[in-house]
Amino acid sequence: MGYPTIQTPWVSHVHTYHDKYVIVYNFRDVDPDTATKELTLLVHDLESVGLDTEIRSGYEATLLVFAKAPRNILGSAVYNSRVKDWLYGIVQTHPGDRSTNVEGAYEAENILSVYHLVNWPKSKGGAGITPGWGQWKNVDSIFPLHNDATNLSLLKYLSSRLILTPDDLDQVRNLFGTKVAYYFAFIQTYVVFLTFPAATGLIAWQFLPKYSLTYAILISVWCTIFIEYWKIQQVDLSIRWDVRGIGAVKVARPQFRWEKIIVEGGQTNHYFPRWKQVARQLLQIPFMVLSTCILGAIIMVVFALETLISEAYSGPYKTYMEYIPTILLGISLPKIYGYLESFATLLTDFENHRTEDNYDMSRTQKIFFLQIIANYLPIFITAFLYVPFGDQIIPKLGVMVGGVMGSYGSYLQSPTHVDGDRLRDEIIALTVTGQLSAFFEENIQPILKRKFREWYRDYNATSAALPSVTDDDEGEFDFLQSARRQATLEQYNVQDDIAEIVLQFGSLALFPPVWPLISIGFLINNIIELRTDFLKIVREQRRPAPVRTDGIGPWTTSLDCLTWAGSISTSAIVHLYGSNSIAGGAWWALPITIFIGEHISMGLRAIVRFALDRRGSEQIRKERNARYLSRVKHLEEIEANRLANLAGLATPAERERKKSIRATGSDAFFAKQIEDGASVQAGLDLMRAYRRADEVKQQPKID
Amino acid sequence: MGYPTIQTPWVSHVHTYHDKYVIVYNFRDVDPDTATKELTLLVHDLESVGLDTEIRSGYEATLLVFAKAPRNILGSAVYNSRVKDWLYGIVQTHPGDRSTNVEGAYEAENILSVYHLVNWPKSKGGAGITPGWGQWKNVDSIFPLHNDATNLSLLKYLSSRLILTPDDLDQVRNLFGTKVAYYFAFIQTYVVFLTFPAATGLIAWQFLPKYSLTYAILISVWCTIFIEYWKIQQVDLSIRWDVRGIGAVKVARPQFRWEKIIVEGGQTNHYFPRWKQVARQLLQIPFMVLSTCILGAIIMVVFALETLISEAYSGPYKTYMEYIPTILLGISLPKIYGYLESFATLLTDFENHRTEDNYDMSRTQKIFFLQIIANYLPIFITAFLYVPFGDQIIPKLGVMVGGVMGSYGSYLQSPTHVDGDRLRDEIIALTVTGQLSAFFEENIQPILKRKFREWYRDYNATSAALPSVTDDDEGEFDFLQSARRQATLEQYNVQDDIAEIVLQFGSLALFPPVWPLISIGFLINNIIELRTDFLKIVREQRRPAPVRTDGIGPWTTSLDCLTWAGSISTSAIVHLYGSNSIAGGAWWALPITIFIGEHISMGLRAIVRFALDRRGSEQIRKERNARYLSRVKHLEEIEANRLANLAGLATPAERERKKSIRATGSDAFFAKQIEDGASVQAGLDLMRAYRRADEVKQQPKID
Repeated sequence: MGYPTIQTPWVSHVHTYHDKYVIVYNFRDVDPDTATKELTLLVHDLESVGLDTEIRSGYEATLLVFAKAPRNILGSAVYNSRVKDWLYGIVQTHPGDRSTNVEGAYEAENILSVYHLVNWPKSKGGAGITPGWGQWKNVDSIFPLHNDATNLSLLKYLSSRLILTPDDLDQVRNLFGTKVAYYFAFIQTYVVFLTFPAATGLIAWQFLPKYSLTYAILISVWCTIFIEYWKIQQVDLSIRWDVRGIGAVKVARPQFRWEKIIVEGGQTNHYFPRWKQVARQLLQIPFMVLSTCILGAIIMVVFALETLISEAYSGPYKTYMEYIPTILLGISLPKIYGYLESFATLLTDFENHRTEDNYDMSRTQKIFFLQIIANYLPIFITAFLYVPFGDQIIPKLGVMVGGVMGSYGSYLQSPTHVDGDRLRDEIIALTVTGQLSAFFEENIQPILKRKFREWYRDYNATSAALPSVTDDDEGEFDFLQSARRQATLEQYNVQDDIAEIVLQFGSLALFPPVWPLISIGFLINNIIELRTDFLKIVREQRRPAPVRTDGIGPWTTSLDCLTWAGSISTSAIVHLYGSNSIAGGAWWALPITIFIGEHISMGLRAIVRFALDRRGSEQIRKERNARYLSRVKHLEEIEANRLANLAGLATPAERERKKSIRATGSDAFFAKQIEDGASVQAGLDLMRAYRRADEVKQQPKID
Repeated sequence: MGYPTIQTPWVSHVHTYHDKYVIVYNFRDVDPDTATKELTLLVHDLESVGLDTEIRSGYEATLLVFAKAPRNILGSAVYNSRVKDWLYGIVQTHPGDRSTNVEGAYEAENILSVYHLVNWPKSKGGAGITPGWGQWKNVDSIFPLHNDATNLSLLKYLSSRLILTPDDLDQVRNLFGTKVAYYFAFIQTYVVFLTFPAATGLIAWQFLPKYSLTYAILISVWCTIFIEYWKIQQVDLSIRWDVRGIGAVKVARPQFRWEKIIVEGGQTNHYFPRWKQVARQLLQIPFMVLSTCILGAIIMVVFALETLISEAYSGPYKTYMEYIPTILLGISLPKIYGYLESFATLLTDFENHRTEDNYDMSRTQKIFFLQIIANYLPIFITAFLYVPFGDQIIPKLGVMVGGVMGSYGSYLQSPTHVDGDRLRDEIIALTVTGQLSAFFEENIQPILKRKFREWYRDYNATSAALPSVTDDDEGEFDFLQSARRQATLEQYNVQDDIAEIVLQFGSLALFPPVWPLISIGFLINNIIELRTDFLKIVREQRRPAPVRTDGIGPWTTSLDCLTWAGSISTSAIVHLYGSNSIAGGAWWALPITIFIGEHISMGLRAIVRFALDRRGSEQIRKERNARYLSRVKHLEEIEANRLANLAGLATPAERERKKSIRATGSDAFFAKQIEDGASVQAGLDLMRAYRRADEVKQQPKID
């Protein structure tokens, strides 16, 4: 709970990274007068909260405004942030008296305070620099600088570890804040859990029948245990990192529109009716339905064409023709996907979230839904339309398309036979290409992009010598080169990385029995991913603002939904493809199998939840003990009170005094058996009397 | 949060009720020597914790030991209890300095402390009197005395109110503690919610087709809203009554067996491995399966016989024969039910719950499950076996039974036709008789029982004059008569009353479309029930120990389960009996309907939960504000700090000092643009330079 005074290695370097923030001002499309005004205001606002500024040139019509918080300003900001945490009940203990030398416990705590000084609205004590929005639309970005030395040593350390302990995660938190650290905690937990399906997958592949029910149930249980365990883990970490319930402390995003201001209990709340927000969020449902229909229709058509050409077409240019649908998809999908994405953004804007976190998460969730559709729908079509009905549908489709195509139609022939293994192939193709393309997108593409941009910039620069860059002072050259490079990088969005893992979890939850070996691939991929992701943040992305969260947010709900959907999809696949299905896998029995499968899975989930709930969270117990300890001296007071009271009874004087109080009290009933032993004696007398009366009654009456 | 000093009306009477407890010692089967020893020890133990004692005779070989806590002992106990609450984090504010005149805020708080003095183990500062267990097996009961004056005035007040406000519930809490108050809060919320199905039920009955899908969905949504609303209500009240998380404060029951003692963080914990407890609790599942089978088999057989005789039998004595199965059931069911109940108790003992609360709840839940089976199975059999298959099964059954019955078998004829309305009749019969018999059991039977016992006692007493009773002192007669009467009453168990309401909720959730008018009956019944229950506690039950809970515990889970089961059962009924079913109500389509119905209901529940969750709890917001207020002076400190820091910047001297610090600091990078306006100027220069270079580049090169 306390804030240990630790070694602060970052202040020993020539350049410090814990107290600086870079503001990138872009003057390409700004006329000189406006630029002068804006830059003056920018520097003024930064200085008005106590930040020092230095300006250097950046690449391509940008200025890098370096803002540094002097020691007393930074200390004060860190202290205030801690007090605020305590004020909102995030931590239970007051941070103690203010000293001017308050120092962040780790680099990210300092940077967070600098971030708040730069970004928070003026009413909250910041300079109110909001990149790309409002009066700061010419500010491209604001970001803290990478601490290369620490990055490198942590990267080396992490590469040498197979399993990250909470202490290792602390290191990540110290550098990049809890939001990023949670991602690493999540992928770490997931990797450890993946060993189970990987091991059993190998066994299932060797010894169990295809589409095995046993393996399907095993994986369903595994999914549930993983999620429930992660939820507890998440709470544990939030207590460990003092961020439980941190959402309450977050400031409103500048785009948030309130209806009125409510002053309640000393707090000024910007009020936007909750029911309105809820109603707006419910618009997600039609959005989901709509986008499922649109994406579904496109995928269906392309799928049908592809199947038709590859299996029924035998005319000229077959080799080329086969690629036509894929090319069509390649052209149309990103466009439509882009439309849907911007629609999702509009919808999220309309939802009017108060904090940036909620906004980000809500938006990512919508886009994630689109990803799910785009990724899994082809498999669903293969599993539940193509393989079972292909033999009937494809010929009909051939006739239909043949009619449209005129003379080319004659090349369409009856296909040989629908490929039963296509489901497995589809899944393998999907996952393998998915993992590979994700790897490329994440790790290779940014490097290529950057290299190209650097080459282009140099090509440009040589033709018109940029005085700014070449005029660097001797000692600043490396530092400035690094800062300029970072300014051109993309912002790191941890949500994308989480989405990737959750999507992967989805293919495991939805189609486990199709190809059990899939999880081995995932395991290997993720062990690598964990390291390359760190490398990616360090090398190819701007250092993220170390904002705090108390978990991965709505992603746990996504995991829950995928597990639930998995129980249905798995039952259906086992029913249709497995060897021991109810009624031999007949269609009319499918709902029965699904019903049974889903409810077995629900029952198991209830049991797992019950068991893990009872087991409870280690960290919560620790927290409770800590609070207890901090208050325990009062327990001793209680005991002393009690003993004092009782000791009083022992002295004869006190006993006499007590008797006289009792005798003169208003309660006449309790003034009868005052003397020592009187009540026992009365009781014994009563018993004796009763026994005597009873004996009399038992004796035969003698007349 | 604080403890207001309020008027204490109970101390103005001649007899006080807030500081007394009655211990009933039964010496019927005890030899005089043991009785003497036990009574002496009893009084000694009571006095050792500072209680005063008076002994009077009770009815029938019992002694009433009156224990009274003197003012200082009571005050100290109340204070200690408050400190303990704070210590365990139940309340956030320390109760303040101890004064000898601490007074409970209401009667129940005082009584609870007296209860703890009498009942808690000696290690916790009590006298350790555990009725009927261990060394105190001859102690029949311990109970506080009813405060008749307050009871009466509250009864009058409650009878005059249609809807109980939280303030009214406070009154109940003041008298009987939170556990009982929660029951009244629950039934009150339920009654208010019942108006909706009652009103729509009337409309549905008039205007909608039989077994209406619309009405079924309406009720399903209603169930969900009710449960989710109640959950929030429960948390609200727990904060209002300062009992949130109270389970942690409860002492272990004496029957609790631990494996080892763990001293952790200054606390001595009696440790019993959680996984063991979980494993033992999982035994509930086979127990449920087993008892379903046993009760199911019996009910099935009786049901079949009854149907056979009433519809197919035409021999002699038909009128009498019809009653045979019911009589068989009447004889066999209670016996088997009793066995299962004691088995449930054994199982609960084995589960080794730490606190009395958990034990009680776990046991009641098991018995509730038995009640569910016994109540609803006949309806399920009617709905899903008898009505759909009766025409096929009954003749076959007739032949079978005919063979067994020999010559009587010839009287069995083919039945006319299975009665389609039987489902409705069965439900009406079940609910009407259920409500009536519950009313009788709860309200009439105890009175009759008591009257009989009183008559018998008087009859006995006249033949052998009991000196004890007739020897009462003048002023004590009424008081003692009342105490003796209370000693003969039954203990009030709030769980039974909750179970009744939950069972009623079950018939609403499981079979809403069968007979929509059902809920009107429930509404009327419950409006009466709320008042008669209070009357019952006051007149026919011993005053309960005002123990604290933070809700109705696992009953909310029961409500959830019933709603879920309802979504399945309702879909099935609508499918089989309704007019617009999928595939005309064919059997093969039943799982499809169930699947759809269940998932619609699940979706609605998710939406309701989401909406109510976001809306949040009023009380939680208040609590947060209160905590914020109590810490808010530090906010001002923050603001003052910030202003002080910034004010410093304004003075020229301070600016100079700051500049010199910056100039001599280790960070050479930030020592460049120290002077006022230097960085802005540098930025402007850089922009100008860039623009110039750019212009040069744009100009066509002139060779």
